[in-house]
Amino acid sequence: MNPTIQLYDATLRDGMQGEGMSLTAEEKVRVAHHLDALGIDIIEAGFPSSNPKELELFKRLEQETFQHAQIAAFGMTSRRGIPSHEDESLHILADCFAPLVTIVGKTWDLHLEKVVKVDREENLVMISESIEFLIREGKRVIYDAEHFFDAYRSDASYAMRCLRAAASAGAERIVLCDTNGSSLPHQIGSAVKEVVAGLGGRVATGIHCHNDLECGVANSLAAVLNGATQVQGTMNGIGERTGNANLVSIIGNLQTKLGYAVLTDEQLVRLTPTAHVIDELLNVAPDPNQPFVGRNAFAHKGGLHVAGIRADASTFEHMEPELVGNERALLVSELAGRHTIIEKAAGAGLDIDDAACARVMDHVKRLEHDGFQFEAADASLELLLRKEAGEYEPLFTLHSWRTIVEQDASGRVSCEATIKIDIGGDRYVRTAEGNGPVNALDAALRSAIGEVHPHLTDVELVNYKVRILDEHHGTTATTRVLIDSSDGERTWGTIGVAPNIIAASWQALVDSLEYAEQAKPSPRGSGPRRELAQGLAPAASGDITATVET
Amino acid sequence: MNPTIQLYDATLRDGMQGEGMSLTAEEKVRVAHHLDALGIDIIEAGFPSSNPKELELFKRLEQETFQHAQIAAFGMTSRRGIPSHEDESLHILADCFAPLVTIVGKTWDLHLEKVVKVDREENLVMISESIEFLIREGKRVIYDAEHFFDAYRSDASYAMRCLRAAASAGAERIVLCDTNGSSLPHQIGSAVKEVVAGLGGRVATGIHCHNDLECGVANSLAAVLNGATQVQGTMNGIGERTGNANLVSIIGNLQTKLGYAVLTDEQLVRLTPTAHVIDELLNVAPDPNQPFVGRNAFAHKGGLHVAGIRADASTFEHMEPELVGNERALLVSELAGRHTIIEKAAGAGLDIDDAACARVMDHVKRLEHDGFQFEAADASLELLLRKEAGEYEPLFTLHSWRTIVEQDASGRVSCEATIKIDIGGDRYVRTAEGNGPVNALDAALRSAIGEVHPHLTDVELVNYKVRILDEHHGTTATTRVLIDSSDGERTWGTIGVAPNIIAASWQALVDSLEYAEQAKPSPRGSGPRRELAQGLAPAASGDITATVET
Repeated sequence: MNPTIQLYDATLRDGMQGEGMSLTAEEKVRVAHHLDALGIDIIEAGFPSSNPKELELFKRLEQETFQHAQIAAFGMTSRRGIPSHEDESLHILADCFAPLVTIVGKTWDLHLEKVVKVDREENLVMISESIEFLIREGKRVIYDAEHFFDAYRSDASYAMRCLRAAASAGAERIVLCDTNGSSLPHQIGSAVKEVVAGLGGRVATGIHCHNDLECGVANSLAAVLNGATQVQGTMNGIGERTGNANLVSIIGNLQTKLGYAVLTDEQLVRLTPTAHVIDELLNVAPDPNQPFVGRNAFAHKGGLHVAGIRADASTFEHMEPELVGNERALLVSELAGRHTIIEKAAGAGLDIDDAACARVMDHVKRLEHDGFQFEAADASLELLLRKEAGEYEPLFTLHSWRTIVEQDASGRVSCEATIKIDIGGDRYVRTAEGNGPVNALDAALRSAIGEVHPHLTDVELVNYKVRILDEHHGTTATTRVLIDSSDGERTWGTIGVAPNIIAASWQALVDSLEYAEQAKPSPRGSGPRRELAQGLAPAASGDITATVET
Repeated sequence: MNPTIQLYDATLRDGMQGEGMSLTAEEKVRVAHHLDALGIDIIEAGFPSSNPKELELFKRLEQETFQHAQIAAFGMTSRRGIPSHEDESLHILADCFAPLVTIVGKTWDLHLEKVVKVDREENLVMISESIEFLIREGKRVIYDAEHFFDAYRSDASYAMRCLRAAASAGAERIVLCDTNGSSLPHQIGSAVKEVVAGLGGRVATGIHCHNDLECGVANSLAAVLNGATQVQGTMNGIGERTGNANLVSIIGNLQTKLGYAVLTDEQLVRLTPTAHVIDELLNVAPDPNQPFVGRNAFAHKGGLHVAGIRADASTFEHMEPELVGNERALLVSELAGRHTIIEKAAGAGLDIDDAACARVMDHVKRLEHDGFQFEAADASLELLLRKEAGEYEPLFTLHSWRTIVEQDASGRVSCEATIKIDIGGDRYVRTAEGNGPVNALDAALRSAIGEVHPHLTDVELVNYKVRILDEHHGTTATTRVLIDSSDGERTWGTIGVAPNIIAASWQALVDSLEYAEQAKPSPRGSGPRRELAQGLAPAASGDITATVET
């Protein structure tokens, strides 16, 4: 019987140290809900400092309810020469709503000498008193032993004294951190074994690894196999330098390879969608080759593979992809696609036969090959279905559109768009200005269409997202534009893909208005988003709805 | 004293199974030369089949001379029911120039039953006779035991019989393959230990891992630590599904962490440039977070880190980046202090006083508040520093630029840009078409500037990224554009931020060209490409230029 392993997610704090990683307070709250729905035990939210972003985050988190996850605030031991009860940061942690506080402290003599210039004995006092202060203030404390493995290699007995100081002070758990990512699995494994024995079971331990040697996941597993009962990591392994240990792969391995029941089967199925939604929030393209959850993780090419898979999937697969919410690329995708199409048609109140369904699937396949991606563009997909079902009326006939952006010597940028369209046989020519070409194009199109369909003027573009596909082709790459629109009741997503960003945006704009005019609310009365969220539990479906809008 | 470890690269064969991986015969020859210069011992070139591409590859390889690496041809044991001496594929291998042949055979009963439908005894005969045939034909044979670890878990004694059959037939080395990537380091380690003991040192062993559990590197190291003396992998871990074990990280770990002298110090310095040039040949954007060789692998943000690094780099780095041809990067961000700015200035050979440094920091803070982010835009930051240091010359004076994008009734999109600039008192007016407005603007600007600064026409935009900030404002949100440029030796990043995407792109374009014209190489070099150019032989750096142009 394996011990229970606690999953500790550091995406919102350590993950944000990664290059280009940034989330608004609102986005962080959404991430927290996705982590909660996945079954993460502890979510490290960051330091509740006085900067507006952090203030808002902790204010929001205090109001949110989570099914399972606990929120941990993160900080440091008191600063040198300042008594804990006078340390400003410790007071901020004490005043924070979070019942759980993780504080990090020094363990490595090199850092004591070279970085913080703190005497070894004084450091022990700082560790003890900081923890004692927080406990007096009613907090539960997790102690992160920074640079532990470097420290242990350098001076094992002093490193152990730091851990014992934290344990005696009342920390409920001591986390061994490979802060510089300098350790390998066999080193982590033997050190953890010795530490667990050395602490004589007086306090629980945890592990916090980084991926500098491309061993972050293996290191975390080695620690668990040697007695650590909490694993810290980040979703998709985001983090500074080469990233933190990837909690997604750690979960996959613990549950499917090592027999630890860290999640329920229902939660495990969320692993793939959760990993992808968090990439979307970070505006990072999901890694197609990511273990367990990547699009190619269970992809097979070659006749022998396919034949083997048909005979017995275990011949060429280390596990069933469905267990982690992923799918086999060759065989299952088509069926899944067909199922999705039929479901969507029904959801939109459309009646399409098998032939039409097959045509839609072919069309979708071609479009996806060109860079379309309908997961976040249900409205565009529904318009495809309407065309096949013969329930599509074009909103207008395009004669032409044109955008002009110019900058003069004074640096002033001006931007206008002109559209020429026919509606019901009448020609409409409109020109509008905007602070960007797409904004101007949108204004011009709406001013014309609004005369015939006044209610469409209420449609608001709530979100505009651009991703360059094949980024390494420089400015000649293909552009994917995702637009989310709302009429105040429903929100829907549309997509455009073209080498030219304006042309791609135009496609998404037109789909947005055509959907608004033609699509009737689905039986559930909540538009396509709800369908997107199908298969996820209610609590999370709200989050999915929200996050897809980002 | 550690045993000698043989480095076996499978990039040209197994690596090509990865999604979208493709190289011409000519490119494969270039890769082979880069691998040879790095110090790889054996290069697996593929199966010398009769298709034109493979024919050309092997014809070329036969004519090339390599300093150190041996070429291995790759194939399978004879097909069921066909005597080895009549097996067509084995004859092709026998006729190939390569002195070394790697053949893969079955070991796992599940595959014998479900896939190839071969009797267990017959399989042993196929292994023995195939190897004996190739040895009679004068080849040295490496035997790849496919699915070995699954087989060993399923029926250890039969798996061992397969290995003994290969050894008795005269294979010089037996490679244990985790073909489905289903094993973890502790399983690989113990199995390898038992196999090495079981074979009684009669034959050398090797390891071939995949990354399905995100443990490909750790698995390979576990095998070496338990007696395997050859490691197979691919550069940057390319390969099917989640990829093969990453030979780049394996080399970094063996040499810098485990004390195996797999390369000379001079060869090890090539690790980063070689990893990058192979990405370029594959037309893949190098992973900035890749262990050992990524742009961020030794990146630091935050004042405390930078201060620590200055006191003693080992406080925050697991090794000296220069050993593997990488370099320390100091990411400038809100977290960063003046230390970082001073380091940056020094790195750019600029002398700025404290007052100037303070001004730059204020400026950076204001810009970051507006959405700028200099972590991925060193060149824009350096230009900022140059302006403060009085070492900045504008490349031109802008009179105006204009982009026009239009679509007609037929759906045809056309796009042009016109720029009017003054260079040295002369007015240049240029109009260019492009498949997008930014592409057209770039072409127009370059055609004008190229007349005065011809070398700037060689500057390539290798990466163009767009992020909509504050996405909830729909198309009126602020746009951040990041551009990576390269002159074939160096790459640099520039940034633009504006409500208008074209205006933001223009800022980044201009910075890119001004940096190319003005920035002198920093003492420490400015990125992998520079060290590539410095560190590699002329022949190779010629390749770089070519590949960046592709």
